[in-house]
Amino acid sequence: MKAEIFAIGTEILFGQIVDTNSTWLAGRLPALGIDLYYISTMGDNQARMVECLRRAWDRSDLIITTGGLGPTEDDLTREAIAELLGEPMTREPGLEEALRERWRRRGMPMPERNLKQAALIASATAIPNPRGSAPGWWVERDGRTIVSMPGVRNEMYLMWEAQVEPRLRERSDGTIILSRNIKTSGLSEALVDEMVSPLLSSANPTIGVYAKVDGIHLRLSAKAPRRAEAEGLLKELEGKVRAILKDAVWGVDEETPEGAVGTLLKERGLTVATMESCTGGLLASTITDVPGSSGYFKGGIVSYTNEVKIEAGVSPKTIEKHGAVSPETAIEMAGAVRMKLGADVGMAITGVAGPDPLEGKPPGTVYIGLVTAQDQRATSGGIYLPNRPDIKQRATVNALLFLRRYLLGME
Amino acid sequence: MKAEIFAIGTEILFGQIVDTNSTWLAGRLPALGIDLYYISTMGDNQARMVECLRRAWDRSDLIITTGGLGPTEDDLTREAIAELLGEPMTREPGLEEALRERWRRRGMPMPERNLKQAALIASATAIPNPRGSAPGWWVERDGRTIVSMPGVRNEMYLMWEAQVEPRLRERSDGTIILSRNIKTSGLSEALVDEMVSPLLSSANPTIGVYAKVDGIHLRLSAKAPRRAEAEGLLKELEGKVRAILKDAVWGVDEETPEGAVGTLLKERGLTVATMESCTGGLLASTITDVPGSSGYFKGGIVSYTNEVKIEAGVSPKTIEKHGAVSPETAIEMAGAVRMKLGADVGMAITGVAGPDPLEGKPPGTVYIGLVTAQDQRATSGGIYLPNRPDIKQRATVNALLFLRRYLLGME
Repeated sequence: MKAEIFAIGTEILFGQIVDTNSTWLAGRLPALGIDLYYISTMGDNQARMVECLRRAWDRSDLIITTGGLGPTEDDLTREAIAELLGEPMTREPGLEEALRERWRRRGMPMPERNLKQAALIASATAIPNPRGSAPGWWVERDGRTIVSMPGVRNEMYLMWEAQVEPRLRERSDGTIILSRNIKTSGLSEALVDEMVSPLLSSANPTIGVYAKVDGIHLRLSAKAPRRAEAEGLLKELEGKVRAILKDAVWGVDEETPEGAVGTLLKERGLTVATMESCTGGLLASTITDVPGSSGYFKGGIVSYTNEVKIEAGVSPKTIEKHGAVSPETAIEMAGAVRMKLGADVGMAITGVAGPDPLEGKPPGTVYIGLVTAQDQRATSGGIYLPNRPDIKQRATVNALLFLRRYLLGME
Repeated sequence: MKAEIFAIGTEILFGQIVDTNSTWLAGRLPALGIDLYYISTMGDNQARMVECLRRAWDRSDLIITTGGLGPTEDDLTREAIAELLGEPMTREPGLEEALRERWRRRGMPMPERNLKQAALIASATAIPNPRGSAPGWWVERDGRTIVSMPGVRNEMYLMWEAQVEPRLRERSDGTIILSRNIKTSGLSEALVDEMVSPLLSSANPTIGVYAKVDGIHLRLSAKAPRRAEAEGLLKELEGKVRAILKDAVWGVDEETPEGAVGTLLKERGLTVATMESCTGGLLASTITDVPGSSGYFKGGIVSYTNEVKIEAGVSPKTIEKHGAVSPETAIEMAGAVRMKLGADVGMAITGVAGPDPLEGKPPGTVYIGLVTAQDQRATSGGIYLPNRPDIKQRATVNALLFLRRYLLGME
């Protein structure tokens, strides 16, 4: 089944809100075996809406819309669908009564303009909306389906999950698209692409290569008439990809660097503490994004000045001799916070977040230190990204992936 | 000038990434007097890309694309434009040399497939990309313009601001839509809506009310033939809004809580230090997102265990008597870190990030402490959001806005 999605609302075209509804819906279609070819945004203009819907009607089996079902004059989705199909809108007594009841329960008079939310056309049935006043429309005609839902996220989510998805699953022929996201670090996008190029020509399963903040991702997708077959295709391809990329692969799907590190620390009964300068606390904050992190994270020090570093146990001589931004200082920071907070592993980041150079070193110069009872390691990474938050984020990811590799005996 | 935007990439159609590029661009067009009628997403499929571009070529004066300019086989934006215009692609020696130089500087061999990024057609000129390997394309033919930029956010932003926007401004007829975003805290969306309701019916300038993580925002937009007129309309409306919302307004446009606090601290020559538990370093990290924050931020302690709090100077008796999550402990944390790091202001956050309750307190229970030489304050906030990162972010924003109000004598 071929589908397309329309997000309706002039505020999206003004850049005032990000259309996350379409992303959410798009992520749900592959498991229903539905192919999505287009996502489009339209403003609150009936003529343009009809034009776009007509094209979609000609090329797609399923049209999903969000937005434009409110009570105000610029809510025009119903009107556009009625015009597209040449069917007059009539007020449906059951819907009108439900609306009036909704307002009665709140002890408030219903504004007359809400009545337009009780309208239907002959080819449409209403999709109840337990969280709001706007019912959805389910339109069936000429072998095509239009599903119109409100733009309010929580109303739309519930309507989709409770009512739309089950009906679409029933008519699915079982065909399914499954995906697997393989995450790597330490390789460039072009290099990954070149390495897996013998696999790229496959039409099913497919591979896409994408650059992300935590490294290069490979998206594997397989389509098959049954779930087990799709899973088999994916598994075989994943094996080939892993055989090529080896240690560069650090995770799959929803796995994060902080989650991977947390799992390893928990398994081994180890605790960690952090001292960081240029990342300003982002390493500690990222570690604590994981539920249960209090089981292995002792705490951290944000040593934004040399005095704080020294107070925490870093030798002033090391800073003087090598600079605050140096592998030597990174190791001393990791060792100091490890001792001070009584952790098994001390992790440190020192670097230049910019925009100005520090100690003659350019923004993006970053050193990561790691100290345990047995080992001390430092690694460096030039993170030449253009702004502070990005440098901070990349440095944090690098530190977490460095710790992961160390715990796995790869550093 | 009529424009439309295309976001290109199969990963968007799979719901794997949210297309924020189009939103960012959409927000920039009104000030150039450019009307945006459509935003569309296309996958990495050349035939469908050409079909969509052809329609856009027929109905719009300006087509803006992001994505699909990478080195890999599924990067097809250049190919689609070449096919649309029936012009062959040729490798441009200057672009090739720039690419090779880019890799030479890094001391790495250039993968041969990067060479496709040196291609042009007769109607296209390259838009330099200082942040990446993919130059943009500026295409002019038959009175129409196509601007193709990379999908990587930072590369696209700089290319747009430094090169595309200035050229588009030159050809603008002067009509302009200006916007101003007024940021409030402490009021609900419905309450703000009610308070400004007498102003909502205006057709020009307009007001939109939006709920954001740092409070309720009001978007004011004015359209006029000349910039000065639009500015006048906005200024008058902003005055009315401020008269209604008073102290609830804490900033406008790109201003952030951390930026507002940074400016005040700098003006007054004050320094700050932080101790935080449930936010795990996010307060320190957010403060240090501001360039120049090393001038007023001493550092911080992430006290994820009671031992770390006590080691840093919090009395064990206070924790025992009132709990680690209490106003009393918040104040002791702020006082302790202020002393330990020698700052003028100590700020602390203690709370429950979830998913489990702590000390019998539900996730979202958060106390903020603030201590100076003269004062000590605590404030509480129930942040009943559904996940850890959201609770952490809201608690951080609340702490920064609390400090801002204190510095302005409003607490």
